[in-house]
Formats: sequence, C-alpha cells, structure tokens
Amino acid sequence: MPKQVDHEERRAAIAHALWSLAGDRGLDRVSLRDVAREAGMSLGQLQHYFGTREEMLFFTMDFISERSGERTRARIQELPEKTPYAIVHACLCEMLPLDAHARQGSLMSISYYIEALRNDRLREHARDGAGRLLALITGQLELARERREIPADRDPRREAMLIMSIADGLTSYCHLGLHTAEEALAMARSHLDRLFAAAPAHETKR
Amino acid sequence: MPKQVDHEERRAAIAHALWSLAGDRGLDRVSLRDVAREAGMSLGQLQHYFGTREEMLFFTMDFISERSGERTRARIQELPEKTPYAIVHACLCEMLPLDAHARQGSLMSISYYIEALRNDRLREHARDGAGRLLALITGQLELARERREIPADRDPRREAMLIMSIADGLTSYCHLGLHTAEEALAMARSHLDRLFAAAPAHETKR
Repeated sequence: MPKQVDHEERRAAIAHALWSLAGDRGLDRVSLRDVAREAGMSLGQLQHYFGTREEMLFFTMDFISERSGERTRARIQELPEKTPYAIVHACLCEMLPLDAHARQGSLMSISYYIEALRNDRLREHARDGAGRLLALITGQLELARERREIPADRDPRREAMLIMSIADGLTSYCHLGLHTAEEALAMARSHLDRLFAAAPAHETKR
Repeated sequence: MPKQVDHEERRAAIAHALWSLAGDRGLDRVSLRDVAREAGMSLGQLQHYFGTREEMLFFTMDFISERSGERTRARIQELPEKTPYAIVHACLCEMLPLDAHARQGSLMSISYYIEALRNDRLREHARDGAGRLLALITGQLELARERREIPADRDPRREAMLIMSIADGLTSYCHLGLHTAEEALAMARSHLDRLFAAAPAHETKR
C-alpha cells in the first residue's frame, strides 16, 4: 500500500513553520517560499494546501489559538480548585511570555495583529479570537460576582477587558526589555488579587 | 538675499510625511522614496537630511514624542487643579486614540514598536521613550502616595506600569473594533478612580 500523506499533519507542519519564522522576523518578512522551505516541502506542495497567503494566515492563527486553548484547558485541569480566581490566573499565565514557546507565540500574535489592522477579514478574525478569550474571562468574573468573590458593582466584561489589556500591555513592555515575564506576572497578579480582595467576602477560599 | 531653506522645517515635513504614511499602511511598507514624494521633495533632498532609514525613524519618533509631550503639557496646563490624579488622567487621555490625530499616532507607534523588536538600536530608543512616560506617571503616583491619595502599600512604579499597560492594551483592542476610544477611556478611568479611592484619605480633593 502506498504511504498515505497525512494532510492534517502537513498543514500543522506549515503552521508551525510560519509560526517559527514570523516570531523571529515578523510576518511581513516571510514569503510562502520561506514557509515551504522551513516546512521541508516545495512551494507547489504548500500551495496545494493554501492557495493564498491569507488562507495560510487564517489556518495558522486558528491552529495557534487552538493549541493555546488546549494549554489553557490543561492548566485549568491541573488546578487543585477550579475557582474563578484560579481559572483567570491560569489564563493570565497563558497570555504572558513566561517561556520560550509562549514568547514566540506572543511575537507571532503581535505580527498577526499588525497585518490584521490592514486587512478587514484578518481583523474580524483577530477580533473573534480576542472575543472568545474575553467571553471566557467575563464568564468566570460573572461567576465570581455571584459567589461574592468580587464586588457586586463591578462589570465583569469591563474587568475582563482590563485584565486582558494588562496582560497584553505588560507583554509588549516585556519584549522591549522594561521587565521580565515573571515581573509582569507579579504585576498582573497584584491587580487580580485586589479585584478579588475588594469584595466583602474576600476571605472566601480561592 | 536668497531664500534660506529652513532645515528644521524640512525635517519636520519629512517626519510628518512618514508619520502619515506609516499610520495608514505600516512602516514596513513605506520606502524612503514614498516619504520623499509625500513630503514634496526628491529622494536626493530627503537623503541630504537622513542618510539612512534608521536615522529617519529615530528623528520621526523623537519628533512625535516631543509633540506628544507638548500636547500632554498643554493638557496639564489647562487643568484647574494640577493634582496627581488629574495629571495621570491627562496622560491617559493622551495615550488613548481619542481623535483622528491620536489614532494615527497610535498606529504609527505600533508600527514602530514592531520594527523596534527586530532592531537593537530602535528597541533601546523605544524603551527609553516608554521609560520617560513611566517616570512621569511614577513621579505623580509617588506624590499621590505622600499626599495619601493612594494607599501607602502601593508601589508607584508598578502602578504606573499597570496604567500604561491598560492604556496600550485598550488601544490595541480599539483598533480591532472591540470598543470605542471613549469606552476605553471610561474603563481606564475606572481603574484610576479605584486606585485613588482605595486610600483612606480618598475624600481628598482631586
């Protein structure tokens, strides 16, 4: 029997190649030919999977965001207590460039963000991705409010947006060298701690 | 007497041209030739002022950050009471893309940031710029702590970094279309209000 090519594996190899190159030098400096070479295939083979650069970008960002979702779920799975605080904290850890892998992913996301600002379809796609994370954190903060772990007058969506903004902003300044990712996590955590400490029932177990 | 060319004016015209083009399409898609055309001069004339793209970028970012500093100082000048709260709030207003000019400046800064991630000299330059804003806000929060307008256990530099991160993160999500700049300001302001309300002396006039 002839060897079957695993198409999903091929697509994943392409996404991984793009991820790796874009993190190093930025998406704008990566051509389809570069990606094919990095993935160990010809340009023709790559184009069999992705006819356009845009399609390749869509797939790669979905691929990265699925992997990131899986890592977040694994982090949450490992938590001894799955409280809203612990789950939001796990999301924060996933958003910050705490290891080489996350750092590369973050550089890739920044690069993708820039392309998204100039392309309506990519922007919509990036907005949907951010929207999903926002919904996850908002949901946890709604639960926290019901459990009286955060003050009743806080708006969960606004608070979720502030937390995501803090993670993103601190990450940008990490890349500039203003602080380490560990320092960023300590700062982000202090914000989270205060949000949860502000509730009358803050002695509630986290 | 022959007409004197005002060199500073020429440099400013170049910076303005670069600023305008980069905000629209991103720095990576702007050539020296494009900038010369936009500034109404020949490539040779432009190169008389800036031998390299890097020199032009340095000058332009300094130019933008001076203008931004001037606008912030003007905002502060107009404040009826120059309290730390009011000054930090003025900085927030300057950081958020609240009008077309600020929006263009923000897109230019994001584009510059991307280039800075791949160029050590530009990164150092961007870090210095962020460091100056951080120092300004930290100074105000130190003063606020002395005046007991924020809690004694807050670290001014960390709080300043959180405020800058919130402004930057909210700005990125503005550009993606998750909220308007006015909504971003309301969210950033709620964070600031809580920092100042957290002090025992929060009834102090702002």
